[in-house]
Amino acid sequence: MSQKFDFAMIGLGVMGRNLLYNMADNGFAVVGFNKSAEKLKALEEDATPGTKVKGVTSLQEMVDLLAVPRKIILLVPAGAPVDEVLGSLQPLLQKDDVIIDAGNSHYTDTIRRMKEQAEFGFHFMGMGVSGGEEGARRGPSIMPGGDRSAYENVAPVLKAIAAKADGEPCVDYMGKGAAGHYVKMVHNGIEYAIMQILAEVYDILKRGKQFTNAELHDIFAKWNQGDLQSFLMEITADVFLQKDDKGEGDLVDKILDVAGSKGTGKWTSQSAMDMSVAIPVIDAAVSMRNISSLKEERVAASKLYDTVDHVIPTDKAVLVQQVHDALYSSIIICYAQGLAMLQKASVELDMDIPLQDAVKVWRAGCIIRSSMLGVFYNVCNSNPGISNILLAPEIVELVKTKLAGLRSTVLSAAIAGIPVMGLSNALSYFDAFITERLPLNLTQSQRDFFGAHTYKRIDVEGVFHTQWFSSTAQ
Amino acid sequence: MSQKFDFAMIGLGVMGRNLLYNMADNGFAVVGFNKSAEKLKALEEDATPGTKVKGVTSLQEMVDLLAVPRKIILLVPAGAPVDEVLGSLQPLLQKDDVIIDAGNSHYTDTIRRMKEQAEFGFHFMGMGVSGGEEGARRGPSIMPGGDRSAYENVAPVLKAIAAKADGEPCVDYMGKGAAGHYVKMVHNGIEYAIMQILAEVYDILKRGKQFTNAELHDIFAKWNQGDLQSFLMEITADVFLQKDDKGEGDLVDKILDVAGSKGTGKWTSQSAMDMSVAIPVIDAAVSMRNISSLKEERVAASKLYDTVDHVIPTDKAVLVQQVHDALYSSIIICYAQGLAMLQKASVELDMDIPLQDAVKVWRAGCIIRSSMLGVFYNVCNSNPGISNILLAPEIVELVKTKLAGLRSTVLSAAIAGIPVMGLSNALSYFDAFITERLPLNLTQSQRDFFGAHTYKRIDVEGVFHTQWFSSTAQ
Repeated sequence: MSQKFDFAMIGLGVMGRNLLYNMADNGFAVVGFNKSAEKLKALEEDATPGTKVKGVTSLQEMVDLLAVPRKIILLVPAGAPVDEVLGSLQPLLQKDDVIIDAGNSHYTDTIRRMKEQAEFGFHFMGMGVSGGEEGARRGPSIMPGGDRSAYENVAPVLKAIAAKADGEPCVDYMGKGAAGHYVKMVHNGIEYAIMQILAEVYDILKRGKQFTNAELHDIFAKWNQGDLQSFLMEITADVFLQKDDKGEGDLVDKILDVAGSKGTGKWTSQSAMDMSVAIPVIDAAVSMRNISSLKEERVAASKLYDTVDHVIPTDKAVLVQQVHDALYSSIIICYAQGLAMLQKASVELDMDIPLQDAVKVWRAGCIIRSSMLGVFYNVCNSNPGISNILLAPEIVELVKTKLAGLRSTVLSAAIAGIPVMGLSNALSYFDAFITERLPLNLTQSQRDFFGAHTYKRIDVEGVFHTQWFSSTAQ
Repeated sequence: MSQKFDFAMIGLGVMGRNLLYNMADNGFAVVGFNKSAEKLKALEEDATPGTKVKGVTSLQEMVDLLAVPRKIILLVPAGAPVDEVLGSLQPLLQKDDVIIDAGNSHYTDTIRRMKEQAEFGFHFMGMGVSGGEEGARRGPSIMPGGDRSAYENVAPVLKAIAAKADGEPCVDYMGKGAAGHYVKMVHNGIEYAIMQILAEVYDILKRGKQFTNAELHDIFAKWNQGDLQSFLMEITADVFLQKDDKGEGDLVDKILDVAGSKGTGKWTSQSAMDMSVAIPVIDAAVSMRNISSLKEERVAASKLYDTVDHVIPTDKAVLVQQVHDALYSSIIICYAQGLAMLQKASVELDMDIPLQDAVKVWRAGCIIRSSMLGVFYNVCNSNPGISNILLAPEIVELVKTKLAGLRSTVLSAAIAGIPVMGLSNALSYFDAFITERLPLNLTQSQRDFFGAHTYKRIDVEGVFHTQWFSSTAQ
């Protein structure tokens, strides 16, 4: 009898294919399932010579080829396709087989599937994978969660294929239930927020100060050499170098200003709201993508209102430094929001997420990888259980010196009519978070006034209601 | 056989009780259900002499007392209690009876219940009611939707009890399905947004310029005499007059700065996100209530960061005028967002909401009633089907003159460290909405770079993907 295979992959899109090759390159025997024999031929032909990659058109054949307990990864579109594949697999598998959903499933689906698959005796994991095509092929950041014994079972291969940061593989157990998909969702939310802030900075420098694409490349490339080093900063610098292959000039200038989305940013905002956690920079990113889609309305509106000339008078070098500091401080504030959300979700959704391990696996391989994550990792380690990293002494020192730049940038944009919802929400969140007494005593007064919703006092314990004086009461 | 009753009410909290009395005062014979005989005795005793108000402790008795088709209103807490009451009623009712859920149910529950109750042959309506205690008693704004024949059946009583604006009752058919609860939800979202903006203005004037409560009363009261006239402005002015009944000074200063919520603001934000509609001022209101609840963290953070002195150098009279204009323009922008959301929901959720009728019924009785709603009503009538009121010529004129005040206010707050997430989101939304070319071409470039998510171009039709130049590709 022939040697059995270690892993199977269902879903051979770019990510699934590349993950499979990554496993094969690391010495594992893998099998890919697809209904198209042609695709499978290509799958086998493009594999690294000497690696063991086999394509099959039948799930039964796939299952028969696997060593038991079988280990099967799903990388199919989120939603119904995942349930369809699980339904097809169920009669073919046996107790203790391991199923890993590595797609971008909504965490509530993962919670449901955990229960369903456990009833069949299978070990189910939801697993976030970040890094895009390149990451999947060369080393992604991997966020597995759910069935702990399943994790232990597959940890060796995950550690082999994952990106490495300071020699450590960017994979670890993210917690119970849907923790893997949840951590990945928040990762994507932070990614949305940082991308929005980068777009705002681009707008400020381009519309507000007429920097050329070549100059923008130099600015972002220089930032990427310093304390703002990150994958997103690096590719942003690169974007400005790309020539248009369909005409004159630079490609970025020809691309429509309408940003799509796959929904994970929205899911992050909605879930945070369900837990009463504020993540307004991520909310702003979701809003701005939605506003970007109103292209026709925007064009019409631009002709109706014409009040501000979008010019920022600040000296060029001074503005670049202000914007640098705005980026730096607001990115910290994005993480403060995202990590506070993970802390709350860990408890509210009973996932026991080890926060420092989530930050640890984001240090390399994923889209939000950056030198700052090393800082956050140290902060999480030296302040275990901290509810918000803005309270950590190391972060206080970093933010303090950069905040003036954020204030100046928001001010310049407000006057110049350049929308900076991400940056201004970072600032408002920060200013609210450090305010001992917010004006929401007025809000609570109003609520008690018109709806008898009661209030608490600052001086006496208890819950109170007042029959408020009304100047117009009959 | 005795004369039958016109209406029954299940749920005799403040709102239900007052609505019932309102009906009775308008000549309708009403019956209230409650399990406590004591409460029912009080219900009957407190009714206006000569009106027909009866309390019963048995649902069967309640049903027997009603003329057919029976008309029953539920005003019980949203969620499971509504389903429990519906379950208890089902065996007691007969075909063509009318059931009205007048609580704050989530619209998805209402859609489900519409179907369930129709299967039993009942006519079900979800109905929003706004106006607080006083409104329920003297004339609320009423937003019924769902079963059209049920609406026609109960319209006479609803018109009798509703608030009146320019002689017209503030009730009309809001559309199919869950339209009634949906319109009420968006009403509440707008209410959240305006309350947040009012709190920010209070903070600017108090912390930024040390206005006393007496001065704040005068400012808000004066605004309420002008183009900012509204119920919320009126009660805000009144709040500053209320003396503390437990000690020295003014009550508003003793109230804890933590604002609660019943969730309808959150629902509005989440539903808007599901439809890809941006309503960032409402999102900001939800965020700020959540941040307000972090009292302990805020107190701790306030001691760690101490960089700005919260002083606004602007001349007092100039600042008050700037803030007035900021309020005026940002309230218009709140409505632009809320109404754009209703337009989208009308189609996406197949509700056929007559937008001008929603605005019409908000003119009196409800929490957001204001003189501005008369303006919006005219705009909706003269620009039928408009996707965003910011595109209406009348609104352009109003906003243009006030925008400088909004810009100056956001600027002053940013420098003074006063969080103004609502105002700045109003400004960012506006500035983005009137921008022909947003910087999200960069976002879309990045998405195509790392995730092959494709992009569109400004010059050629089609969907494109580029193999981007990468400075670090292996």
